[in-house]
Amino acid sequence: MADLEDWTFAPRIYVENIRGRDSAYQVTAEAVTRNLQSVCQLKELTCRFSDERDLDALRRADILIAGRLPTAIVAAEGGNLKIIQCTSAGVESYFPFDWLGPNTTLTNASGVHASKVGAFGLMAALMLHEGVPEVTTNQRRHVWKRKLRGSCAGSRVLIYGVGALGGAIAGQLRAAGFRTAGIRRGGASHPAVERMATPDRLHEELPQADILILACPLTPETRGLIGARELAALPVGAGLLNVARGALIDHAALVSSLASGHLSGAILDVFEEEPLPDDDALWDVPNLMVFPHVSADDPDGYIDRCLVILADNLLRMKAARPLRNVVDAKLGY
Amino acid sequence: MADLEDWTFAPRIYVENIRGRDSAYQVTAEAVTRNLQSVCQLKELTCRFSDERDLDALRRADILIAGRLPTAIVAAEGGNLKIIQCTSAGVESYFPFDWLGPNTTLTNASGVHASKVGAFGLMAALMLHEGVPEVTTNQRRHVWKRKLRGSCAGSRVLIYGVGALGGAIAGQLRAAGFRTAGIRRGGASHPAVERMATPDRLHEELPQADILILACPLTPETRGLIGARELAALPVGAGLLNVARGALIDHAALVSSLASGHLSGAILDVFEEEPLPDDDALWDVPNLMVFPHVSADDPDGYIDRCLVILADNLLRMKAARPLRNVVDAKLGY
Repeated sequence: MADLEDWTFAPRIYVENIRGRDSAYQVTAEAVTRNLQSVCQLKELTCRFSDERDLDALRRADILIAGRLPTAIVAAEGGNLKIIQCTSAGVESYFPFDWLGPNTTLTNASGVHASKVGAFGLMAALMLHEGVPEVTTNQRRHVWKRKLRGSCAGSRVLIYGVGALGGAIAGQLRAAGFRTAGIRRGGASHPAVERMATPDRLHEELPQADILILACPLTPETRGLIGARELAALPVGAGLLNVARGALIDHAALVSSLASGHLSGAILDVFEEEPLPDDDALWDVPNLMVFPHVSADDPDGYIDRCLVILADNLLRMKAARPLRNVVDAKLGY
Repeated sequence: MADLEDWTFAPRIYVENIRGRDSAYQVTAEAVTRNLQSVCQLKELTCRFSDERDLDALRRADILIAGRLPTAIVAAEGGNLKIIQCTSAGVESYFPFDWLGPNTTLTNASGVHASKVGAFGLMAALMLHEGVPEVTTNQRRHVWKRKLRGSCAGSRVLIYGVGALGGAIAGQLRAAGFRTAGIRRGGASHPAVERMATPDRLHEELPQADILILACPLTPETRGLIGARELAALPVGAGLLNVARGALIDHAALVSSLASGHLSGAILDVFEEEPLPDDDALWDVPNLMVFPHVSADDPDGYIDRCLVILADNLLRMKAARPLRNVVDAKLGY
């Protein structure tokens, strides 16, 4: 029998859910039990909404699972926490990570979105190739304007950020015949990316991209990444897709580039404020399509995929192997 | 040396173009020469717009190449024609074919659209799966409404008409993970279609289709194919794509089905009158996307692909083999 004094064999787990959120994103006791029972015994399992927090249970907990991290509470009461498993992939809103204790590892949900975002990215790239943002704008105006496009084979896509999201998109695009280039902090190759560069080469890559796809984390380095200068460096008629975070883009520059006709279309799934406010000017920008942050969200099995990361990490801890999905406090993702 | 008395070795060719049409669809003397020089000598080649017709040359011609067939002129003056190569795939506007002489074979351009329409069909199916028609309608109204969709893998598509267009679409859909069913006059199997049925089984297939794609010719049998009863037989939330001909659909029934929420979205690339008139009500129907007849048109090499059919048929004639792309006057395609 496993050593029940070792917390990895019998952890105390605290789950914090957000009331009113779609049930596909609520972490139930049943889901925790089902996904972890093969790797540990649950010494204690507490599931609460954030408005009915059980501080005593949180103080005792070894593991916190949450969609929105209660950083002040963790700083004050989470001294016993060894792992915080966040059920979102992006953790930029918790930066800097000064609220995180020295003995606590923060892990994110990077990778759980891969299959869905791959299909969405393919759809959006085909739409940009076909000029669908302009077609929908023309429809609003009752304008029948044929602009014939050839095959997407050979159309060149640049993916900024080739992690779980960008890599999944690249795989779908290559299979459909697009040419792929990528930008990645370390410059490491990826099987679906024909040419990989590092961020300092962005301005050499932009003129060779018919479609630019943003799939990187939001960090102090990537905030405002795409402004007037970057958009001007794209070829005339290029398209833009953002499935990452709204603050990567200078939206005033984007609107200007679309208005001038330099950019032929943009598909945005993410915004600095979400939901996008009713009176935001972006709703009505010609050749710009607004998606309500759906590109990467597949409700089927979402929480199961998050909990598999945690189960895997418990096994890794027991085997003294490096954990996966660990957030690098310096890099911010 | 070939027998220059045999017209197949040295044909007289008459080309009729339509003034003002996109240059990608004009048949130039250069293109005819380039595509036919390896299979015959050109005894005579006349290229004219329809408003400057050379009737003497047309009377002498063995082959007529045209995008829009001058049927009355052919009936009166085309007695020497052996082949009429139409550069469009659909020939329903020339039905019935009583203007066609007994010694003349009419061939169409079926197949030249395959690569482009495959990618367009995949894009549109992904868009219907993702609910893009509703997303664009919501954008017009400044409404942020998240409706999360899972993977397209397993989503069921029914393709009515598995010819050159439908077959190409099926191939792309299967590769992307969709489930495919098809309806085909003869019921013959197709490698990318998991279940093939004949037209009399339409009402058994409709309830099993998350997405219905129309890709069949317009004939007296298929006119008005999809009406209120057929739309009602689709599951709630189904989507519809038409890349074939507008008259296949009862549009009043379609609008009702969209308004009731039974159908979740429609993507129409073809209309009974094209361009769709400025004051047509379809422009503003919620959850309906209007495309300006672009799904199958790839300007790159379009005329070359048409002329390859003609070159191939000249070779077949010399070898006394059956021609390809022959329009069946009874079936109407």
